[in-house]
Amino acid sequence: MEPGPCSVIESFDMIGSKWKLIIINDLQNGEKRFNELKRSTEASSRTLSRVLQDLNEDNIVEKRIEDGNPVASYYSLTDKGLALFPVFEEINDWAEEWLE
Amino acid sequence: MEPGPCSVIESFDMIGSKWKLIIINDLQNGEKRFNELKRSTEASSRTLSRVLQDLNEDNIVEKRIEDGNPVASYYSLTDKGLALFPVFEEINDWAEEWLE
Repeated sequence: MEPGPCSVIESFDMIGSKWKLIIINDLQNGEKRFNELKRSTEASSRTLSRVLQDLNEDNIVEKRIEDGNPVASYYSLTDKGLALFPVFEEINDWAEEWLE
Repeated sequence: MEPGPCSVIESFDMIGSKWKLIIINDLQNGEKRFNELKRSTEASSRTLSRVLQDLNEDNIVEKRIEDGNPVASYYSLTDKGLALFPVFEEINDWAEEWLE
């Protein structure tokens, strides 16, 4: 089945921001805590919170809370988010060829 | 050669916006005039101008002026822009699987 233009435009909306791409790319290495993501992506807390919430609402990222004191929040890609891997492979190949 | 993280982050910056993705995707069908792009992407003139200029500065889109009265401006993808085709194929496949 061919996707209608609407679902493609919807996907551009869902993943089309520098920070969304950076965070999805980073989570491909596995689950991370908020502060780990903050360190590795160099996003501000505010940007990181906002983007993680957007990605969570679109079911690309899931949040897991682990009891403790303080409570720890872990973020990881859902199956839908993991399925974006080939997109990142192609961006990587393109960057390698055109931006080196 | 493996691209350093910097070139990947640079590529997220270069193509990572909803409007950049919409416009690059649209130009894959061939050269278009400003008003044609405006109609097909439903971008505002202001957004379209800004994004075309950014993509032109990053050598993803080129502008061709044709003499006449009024002068006509045509936009098309450069080789670097055309090389993004596999990225869009993967986004399309993902949208087909996860957003239908």
